[in-house]
Amino acid sequence: MKLCRFDEDRLGVVNGDMVHDVTAAQDEIRKAARYDMKGDAVIAALPQWRSRIEEMAAKAPGKPISSVKLLSPVARPSKAMAAPTNYKKHIDEMRSRTDLPKDATRMPPDIGKAGIFLKSNSSIVGSSEGIPLRFPDRLNEHEIELVIIIGKQGTDIPKAKFKDYIAGYAMGLDMTCRGSEDRSFRKSIDGYSVIGPWMVTADEIANPDDLLITLHCNDELRQTADTKDLIYDCGRLIEFASSFYTLYPGDVYFTGTPQGVGPVKAGDTLRGKCDALGELVITARQHKIGG
Amino acid sequence: MKLCRFDEDRLGVVNGDMVHDVTAAQDEIRKAARYDMKGDAVIAALPQWRSRIEEMAAKAPGKPISSVKLLSPVARPSKAMAAPTNYKKHIDEMRSRTDLPKDATRMPPDIGKAGIFLKSNSSIVGSSEGIPLRFPDRLNEHEIELVIIIGKQGTDIPKAKFKDYIAGYAMGLDMTCRGSEDRSFRKSIDGYSVIGPWMVTADEIANPDDLLITLHCNDELRQTADTKDLIYDCGRLIEFASSFYTLYPGDVYFTGTPQGVGPVKAGDTLRGKCDALGELVITARQHKIGG
Repeated sequence: MKLCRFDEDRLGVVNGDMVHDVTAAQDEIRKAARYDMKGDAVIAALPQWRSRIEEMAAKAPGKPISSVKLLSPVARPSKAMAAPTNYKKHIDEMRSRTDLPKDATRMPPDIGKAGIFLKSNSSIVGSSEGIPLRFPDRLNEHEIELVIIIGKQGTDIPKAKFKDYIAGYAMGLDMTCRGSEDRSFRKSIDGYSVIGPWMVTADEIANPDDLLITLHCNDELRQTADTKDLIYDCGRLIEFASSFYTLYPGDVYFTGTPQGVGPVKAGDTLRGKCDALGELVITARQHKIGG
Repeated sequence: MKLCRFDEDRLGVVNGDMVHDVTAAQDEIRKAARYDMKGDAVIAALPQWRSRIEEMAAKAPGKPISSVKLLSPVARPSKAMAAPTNYKKHIDEMRSRTDLPKDATRMPPDIGKAGIFLKSNSSIVGSSEGIPLRFPDRLNEHEIELVIIIGKQGTDIPKAKFKDYIAGYAMGLDMTCRGSEDRSFRKSIDGYSVIGPWMVTADEIANPDDLLITLHCNDELRQTADTKDLIYDCGRLIEFASSFYTLYPGDVYFTGTPQGVGPVKAGDTLRGKCDALGELVITARQHKIGG
């Protein structure tokens, strides 16, 4: 099942080029949820609600997906995690670059030593929202990635059981402003965490460690991620993160970017593509002071 | 006004040693809030609800504060920010230490270069919840800090206007596991962000840049924070963070720790004290695998 959030916080099931409105399910789920729950109520309720949502979608008239505004598929993640240095060729390209600021942060190339970093929830957007670039005089770059959406609360999760904790997958853009600051700051600018175009539930992805994702900037192919090449695969990523903290339903997890990262300027359109996950199209613009 | 969350997600007004239950206000506020709002509904509604909450508290019978379980004063922050290297003597002590892991992350001593880092929402606890230490063989340390609780959405906030964006203050423990990993990982372990004992609304704190906070570990005085010594004061911190991202009501902001950070072992009781903010008492224990 492909689940999207659209327009003014509506829930939809995507079928081909059409979206079927199932907001009534979202309303009911949220109403029954505790306000102080950690994580997102709709994602947490999917195992119980899946078949009812499918039935509702089958009865709802479709609307062309091109006519709606796509939001991030998760309304209220508790946290957004991201793996650094998780493709060998990206580690190599970053090492050999001479165009980065002299004081740019460097991390240990071994992800086990580097750890997982956080992006702010306030940086998360869906494709309709665009990316307001904040510092035009600095290097702002795209990093396309596979994103895991956690489905179930868990901690100390063994690698062999990782699939039990996944609700679904999407593509993500880990937008990055290069510089000396902590990466959880430079990568948390408003709009710098794009997730979409929707979530594909885990049952449709036989093997998340065998997906091909491409990124075009305007008409130029910039990045090709083959998740076979992940240094820490999805299972190991979940094991690693959950050895430090509890994962909650709706937590999002950027799995790392491959080689080919490059500059993004106002007016550029970024296009992430994956056969199983759809197409994520988003345009960058200049941030206006005061928002 | 002193606002606490207690027991199973109840809202209370603290008056002397007593807490007055105003959960009915919390229920009403939350019911009226959009699920997808960024930030915490109760904190956002305080300007409108303040006098009604005070009236409700005046009518509610009191309960000894010692008889309730104190939770974090914010139920659903959008993000938890934290300032590194914000007291000169702490920068000096960290530089001269020889007991840190050889590969421990180091940051630029200039906070403007180091940036602000994130802690996970899943790491936030109130004092009744305790701190489950995760890696007993590693160095786990206390860092006592002043915490700002954001009251109003804003971005690109000029320093001179920072008070318009503050709901209140609390004490915070930025618990830290030392090591090579990104600090947003090492400092985001479950229970490693303690906030409390409650929130003191901003009107009661004439000058947040002139507060004295002490930390005892068991009976030993370990840290004394005089917020006069902050390198980036509260206004500059808010200006700096909001130049990167939007702040939302309920966002929490750890302002940095002074000298005197030190080890915490299972069984230790940490005691943060500040005349204006109260006393925060929390005990560390060993994390059990699987939570």
